Amino acid sequence: MTDLPTTTERTDHPAPAGEVLAGYLNARAGAFLRALPLAVGEAGSRTGSLPSAGGGGQGVASGTGELLRCVRRIGGALHTFSTVFEPVWAQETRTELRWLSGLLAQEPGYVRRSARLLAALDSLSETDPGRPGMLAGHAGAPKARALMERQLTLARTRAHTALLQELRSARLHALADRMTLLAGEVPMLPGGEADLRPRVATALGVLEAGVATLPPARAPYGGEGLHRLGAVPAQGAPVDADAVVAADDAPWHRVRILAKRARYALEVCGAGLSELDGVDRVLDRHQEAADAAVTVSTAARTPRITPATAYVLGVVHADQRLEVEAARYAFGHQWPTLQHHGWHEWASC
Amino acid sequence: MTDLPTTTERTDHPAPAGEVLAGYLNARAGAFLRALPLAVGEAGSRTGSLPSAGGGGQGVASGTGELLRCVRRIGGALHTFSTVFEPVWAQETRTELRWLSGLLAQEPGYVRRSARLLAALDSLSETDPGRPGMLAGHAGAPKARALMERQLTLARTRAHTALLQELRSARLHALADRMTLLAGEVPMLPGGEADLRPRVATALGVLEAGVATLPPARAPYGGEGLHRLGAVPAQGAPVDADAVVAADDAPWHRVRILAKRARYALEVCGAGLSELDGVDRVLDRHQEAADAAVTVSTAARTPRITPATAYVLGVVHADQRLEVEAARYAFGHQWPTLQHHGWHEWASC
Repeated sequence: MTDLPTTTERTDHPAPAGEVLAGYLNARAGAFLRALPLAVGEAGSRTGSLPSAGGGGQGVASGTGELLRCVRRIGGALHTFSTVFEPVWAQETRTELRWLSGLLAQEPGYVRRSARLLAALDSLSETDPGRPGMLAGHAGAPKARALMERQLTLARTRAHTALLQELRSARLHALADRMTLLAGEVPMLPGGEADLRPRVATALGVLEAGVATLPPARAPYGGEGLHRLGAVPAQGAPVDADAVVAADDAPWHRVRILAKRARYALEVCGAGLSELDGVDRVLDRHQEAADAAVTVSTAARTPRITPATAYVLGVVHADQRLEVEAARYAFGHQWPTLQHHGWHEWASC
Repeated sequence: MTDLPTTTERTDHPAPAGEVLAGYLNARAGAFLRALPLAVGEAGSRTGSLPSAGGGGQGVASGTGELLRCVRRIGGALHTFSTVFEPVWAQETRTELRWLSGLLAQEPGYVRRSARLLAALDSLSETDPGRPGMLAGHAGAPKARALMERQLTLARTRAHTALLQELRSARLHALADRMTLLAGEVPMLPGGEADLRPRVATALGVLEAGVATLPPARAPYGGEGLHRLGAVPAQGAPVDADAVVAADDAPWHRVRILAKRARYALEVCGAGLSELDGVDRVLDRHQEAADAAVTVSTAARTPRITPATAYVLGVVHADQRLEVEAARYAFGHQWPTLQHHGWHEWASC
């Protein structure tokens, strides 16, 4: 463990801590309120057709993307610095922000997943002699592509419909009212003037503790990627492939959330760490590959598909689990740099 | 390129080169003649049932294994030191040895492939909570297992029948006669007294040149294992998955043959290199995983299999291509050691 300095010995902070935090939340809430009508407009103007995921920054339209960024950062700050706020207000606000975050993330998530899986399939079945794939020209590839595209378009359309509905809901209006309030004044407890740094240090410490629960780094191509996954935690439950893979991924998904919280906590102090951004990105890649693999294995259970289609889906599934493995391997290289270099950089900022 | 010393300056060789080579071939031919009746007996006593591949050293019975070892070493020596021998005799003998080598290797090859694929499938579909696989409890796993086992048993039975037939053939008796002759006298040209070391150096140089044709080492999990394979060499030929994968593997299979030749050439001089043995083993693993992957993709084209079976075969296929990638990665680590350390060790022996 790296020693994270507490800030009892630091008295040269340029602005009082409460002011910094309140300023940050005021600004994020203001941005939320500006992005909300844009996001509503974007959702309304999108039809059922799948937008291209290539150009528009991971397939998220600008208003929706900005709204999602605000929601996550406000929620993160309310979590990390929770002792500073009026507790009932903070708890309720976090619940509502989590709800909106889930709602907003769904549709772009399906767009990215579709782009990821179709690109993987196209690359695996590529016939260009310069860069052919192991399924080059396979008869099952077009059918598997059509099947995945159809299922993901359907899921995306459902998510879109749910989003449109909720964007008009009383629940969203109530949350917007909360944000209007937050843009002007942050409901802090009297002790809210305390220094933020110990809380940031705690967020980083919790992330470190989460990483410590991850299985030891694997040698490349050790075969553990598809074989010998994490044990299923639930005692006595039937062991099936989905449960096994979910149990294998679970600690990584937890670490991803902790990394995001640590990142947002540092942002409040104006101390971004590029190494932490990199770790966050690689954990996002891990999550997206894992989710994509689940989508493929679900698609393979579609009744009455041809064996050729199912075969191609099996290859794509393994390919996505390999992507999961690749992300873990990349994490294993990035994490030590963050821990040994980035932490110290933060401590001196 | 490492400078391989020629031996024009070495005059302290304990035995004349021709004598060393003749002694080596006499001994190997004698071993051939002792192993042949054992191998014939073993083949006759084996029935259609698949022998276990676990205990008996890669599933090759001892007589057959020893015979194969002799055949490969004599063939290798005849190739590497070809200028030393009576050319027509050497050429004919090599052709016959290649034929017998192919014949003997087939059945144990199917036994090993069956063991490899069934172990991979069992591990992928393992439900033990301590080490479950990504296909844990998948409905298609038992069917895919039965299909692969049936097809490989059939292939193995066919190979066995062909072997039994050829072991009684006039062709084999003629080869045995050649070996009887070789056990007593080696048909060398008058210039056969020349030093062996330049020929060994050539074999090592050819191996180095072969390795130089391999694609540059890939970063682990770079995605090139299943995507972006080697270009198909045949111009204008239709690009299909089998051709693409075969073109990707071809340079590696060539290097494997060159590594074996180099290994046997060193053996003639009594100079084994453990690093070269390691490289040879990893290239064997590469070949066996590549062959296993072909078997799986062929099995997946069996008419009327269920989608679940085909899906599992797709995962197993990708898993074996991952094994191919793992072998290449291991080669990338072993080769520099051999080149920088092993070569010099040989040069000083």
